[in-house]
Amino acid sequence: MTESVLLIATDDPILTSDFMIELERQVRALDAYGSYDAWSAAKVLDPYILTKERKREIPLVGDPDDVTISRVKAFYNAIASLIEKECGQMAVPLVSLTHEGFGRALITVGKLVVMEKTLRDVHRFGFPSASKLKDEADKLLAVALEIIGAHPKAAGM
Amino acid sequence: MTESVLLIATDDPILTSDFMIELERQVRALDAYGSYDAWSAAKVLDPYILTKERKREIPLVGDPDDVTISRVKAFYNAIASLIEKECGQMAVPLVSLTHEGFGRALITVGKLVVMEKTLRDVHRFGFPSASKLKDEADKLLAVALEIIGAHPKAAGM
Repeated sequence: MTESVLLIATDDPILTSDFMIELERQVRALDAYGSYDAWSAAKVLDPYILTKERKREIPLVGDPDDVTISRVKAFYNAIASLIEKECGQMAVPLVSLTHEGFGRALITVGKLVVMEKTLRDVHRFGFPSASKLKDEADKLLAVALEIIGAHPKAAGM
Repeated sequence: MTESVLLIATDDPILTSDFMIELERQVRALDAYGSYDAWSAAKVLDPYILTKERKREIPLVGDPDDVTISRVKAFYNAIASLIEKECGQMAVPLVSLTHEGFGRALITVGKLVVMEKTLRDVHRFGFPSASKLKDEADKLLAVALEIIGAHPKAAGM
């Protein structure tokens, strides 16, 4: 994963989408030591892209390291943040993992679970391309807003 | 905490309450090596009782050990199990903790968060007496059922 070829072009228009801007912000927010300060958005977000070739380099079974766990948390933090912007209510993400990289990710708004995902093989968390990453986020956002629309009272709207 | 005097009498009628029976069951369920197999219910549940004297023996700041974390999980598992029995829908507990013993406990029914608690100082998790332990559980159960009653559709009822 230390290869120097980025799989997101620094001028890729996808980097100007709401989700990718938020995701970059969330990754930087969890970067307590400022290691990414001099990095471009493309370089910060590049590890989210796991092509077949990159996946092949990661063992099938393994424990996720702190950087990978941060990446998973930043992903759900970014989705929570977009949900919050859309519905105007606080959206709280919660990622609970075992050491072996299994667990659950939840986002709640008021008393409503607006997103829920079972996580497995977190050490291999990633998406085939930047557009697939954004698609997944857009889908989770749309479903969350639909759930809020169906249960506005439980969401505290 | 290795004192031999139990703070719950082996014939305390509280041990026959639904919650205490369920709590004992949940503690034993997390006891993967069967260390408690020969123990009475009173002995299994005794570590939940933290009197002032017992609390004084635990440092103010500390990381919770695995046994303590299991105890916290068993407590919320037991509450989830009672919620499930009352409402007939699956109740899923989720305890998410940092190494330092801070975190959140959630119980969800369908898309509804029926219990939510911020956890701190988990290494000092306990109750002044068995009846206080049961009172807290009864309270959380009552509130959860109230939330389900207010939002039955989100709970999937």
